[in-house]
Amino acid sequence: MFAPTYLDWNATTPLHPAVREAMLPWLDARFGNASSRHEYGRQARAAIDTARAQVAAAVGAHATEVVFTSGGSEANNLFIKGAAACMKPGLVAVSAIEHPCVREPARQLARAGWTLREIAVDAAGRIDPDDWAAVLRARPSIVSVMRANNETGVLQDVARLAAEARAAGAWFHTDAVQALGKTVLDFRALGVHGMTLSAHKIGGPLGAGALVLDKRVELAPLIAGGGQERGLRSGTENVAAIVGFGVACELASAQVEREAVRLAGLRERLEAAVAGLGARIFSTGAERLPNTCFFAIEGIDGETLVGKLDRAGFACASGSACSSANPEPSRTLTAMGVAPELARNAVRVSLGRDTTEQDVERFAAGLARQVQELRNLTAMAV
Amino acid sequence: MFAPTYLDWNATTPLHPAVREAMLPWLDARFGNASSRHEYGRQARAAIDTARAQVAAAVGAHATEVVFTSGGSEANNLFIKGAAACMKPGLVAVSAIEHPCVREPARQLARAGWTLREIAVDAAGRIDPDDWAAVLRARPSIVSVMRANNETGVLQDVARLAAEARAAGAWFHTDAVQALGKTVLDFRALGVHGMTLSAHKIGGPLGAGALVLDKRVELAPLIAGGGQERGLRSGTENVAAIVGFGVACELASAQVEREAVRLAGLRERLEAAVAGLGARIFSTGAERLPNTCFFAIEGIDGETLVGKLDRAGFACASGSACSSANPEPSRTLTAMGVAPELARNAVRVSLGRDTTEQDVERFAAGLARQVQELRNLTAMAV
Repeated sequence: MFAPTYLDWNATTPLHPAVREAMLPWLDARFGNASSRHEYGRQARAAIDTARAQVAAAVGAHATEVVFTSGGSEANNLFIKGAAACMKPGLVAVSAIEHPCVREPARQLARAGWTLREIAVDAAGRIDPDDWAAVLRARPSIVSVMRANNETGVLQDVARLAAEARAAGAWFHTDAVQALGKTVLDFRALGVHGMTLSAHKIGGPLGAGALVLDKRVELAPLIAGGGQERGLRSGTENVAAIVGFGVACELASAQVEREAVRLAGLRERLEAAVAGLGARIFSTGAERLPNTCFFAIEGIDGETLVGKLDRAGFACASGSACSSANPEPSRTLTAMGVAPELARNAVRVSLGRDTTEQDVERFAAGLARQVQELRNLTAMAV
Repeated sequence: MFAPTYLDWNATTPLHPAVREAMLPWLDARFGNASSRHEYGRQARAAIDTARAQVAAAVGAHATEVVFTSGGSEANNLFIKGAAACMKPGLVAVSAIEHPCVREPARQLARAGWTLREIAVDAAGRIDPDDWAAVLRARPSIVSVMRANNETGVLQDVARLAAEARAAGAWFHTDAVQALGKTVLDFRALGVHGMTLSAHKIGGPLGAGALVLDKRVELAPLIAGGGQERGLRSGTENVAAIVGFGVACELASAQVEREAVRLAGLRERLEAAVAGLGARIFSTGAERLPNTCFFAIEGIDGETLVGKLDRAGFACASGSACSSANPEPSRTLTAMGVAPELARNAVRVSLGRDTTEQDVERFAAGLARQVQELRNLTAMAV
């Protein structure tokens, strides 16, 4: 099979081989329902307990604070709608650069009597201090600000934001899906009420995520039923995926600091090459994830460039994966004040575990070639 | 590894070997995010399309009517709460023997201004005609009645109930999780607005289910975000699980009629043996799934018996799997008017694909032995 060079690690990641090995028995002879009170069920329950401890350890939380879900989107919806269901309608504030799976549940609240306020970001994609102060003065009930943006990779100072939001009486949630495995993540140090994680962004499987939840937070379940996950998430547990998530967390946290240095080095080479083509690289002035490069080249449409790169054997993204069926320019960029014409040219390259120096060199050469071809076409058309 | 004889197929099932084979590439080199616009993403999208057609074909629906979810609990919650979110609060009616993942979301509605009405069943576990007529006169907005009960296996006449509920102006939903693969299931023939399916009950994986949904029904998503599944279920699709679900549906529907005859024959032998021990077998007067035997023996506690059978190498259930952490007697049985003392003795044996005549004979002998031992103990204690 032809295997293009994968440079879209923020969209999803291949399973780590050790994760796959750990999962396989649970797709074979160990198939029990974890609620069953016989040998098959007890084995499944024990495996989930182990995974819960692994996930908790990776983010400095207690195992009892980990609520397994089917993924990050569910965990984000669970916190936002689950908390709101236990409150009187009030103000929900989410940053202007949240993933749709934070923005959309907040919009659902707005249709149910809540006031929705987006928190502005500056030109580098960081929460705007003046707008943040204004949000706090408005006394929000629920605040959600992501730890790391999926497109720019920009990191927010969540510890400070959470402390200030708490002081203002809000429940504070952070979507840490992109931060996990790429930067040290500590639930206690961040001081948030809820934090969303996803397995498939860190070499774990699709189908598993978690809401790490301060026990003092009352939530209504999104999926009610058999009472699994302390009543916060019913449904027969996806044992294989949960087992894989646990192992992926353990592997990711063991190597996060070393891997961050390695990826930052690769990205530096990549960005030197990209800048050499006259690209504008977004958010270089902000603290960012080490693996993410988001750029735009004037006059070169992002979708077109990504399509050409795909045919040339390089898999990268034009917008965030989940909204790439959508031809709108990136909301993250428009929130940063980037003109729509330039935002439409955006390309995201995100590196990961298997990315090598050779991959980056080959990509840089391939990118230069495709950009040159597109410029030649444009020149002919003009 | 010691492998007890598995007689708990209504709780979950081992993966069909062909399902596992079909899934493995998606846990390996084919790891793309189905929303990505490159080779990895396109492969994933095509695989989901194939699976959607397989699931639809297995239940006589159109592919566009299949909404993939993380499982049956999510699909049940999606219909009930998703439909309610598009209506003014009214009457929600669910049968008294629904699985908790139908009952609990209905209760959540009751806490949000809806009126909740349970529909009574008769002594055999079928919807009580008089109570049903009374429910219809009360003009429910949402009705949910399961096609097959997870404990007794009793089948409801969903086609008639759905037609009458429709005529009374209700949206009608059926939880068909236990019916799929054990009896012919036809979405169009049932005439329901929504129907819940689950992969792991039919030799498919945990982590995949579906809501089959009449396109005229408006639903608010439970998980809002990137807009996957026509906006009805956001979140990166669990490709491997969905692929496995598709193959499992194809296999199950190809053999459902032949397998039903085989299982009914095995169950007949089983029930003759169980009856010989003086057991009361529930719902024998009703049309039932061919694989399910639910019985109780006077003076023999169900949990105790299941525990002894487990140690003797037989995996079966005392209550429904999802609530077996709960020491209450089966709600299904109490709704049928069975005395709590007898309901506490209930044991469920559910057969499946791998169950052989030898398994049934050995189980019958093992059961007789355990029952004799428990009777001897009781006799000594007295």
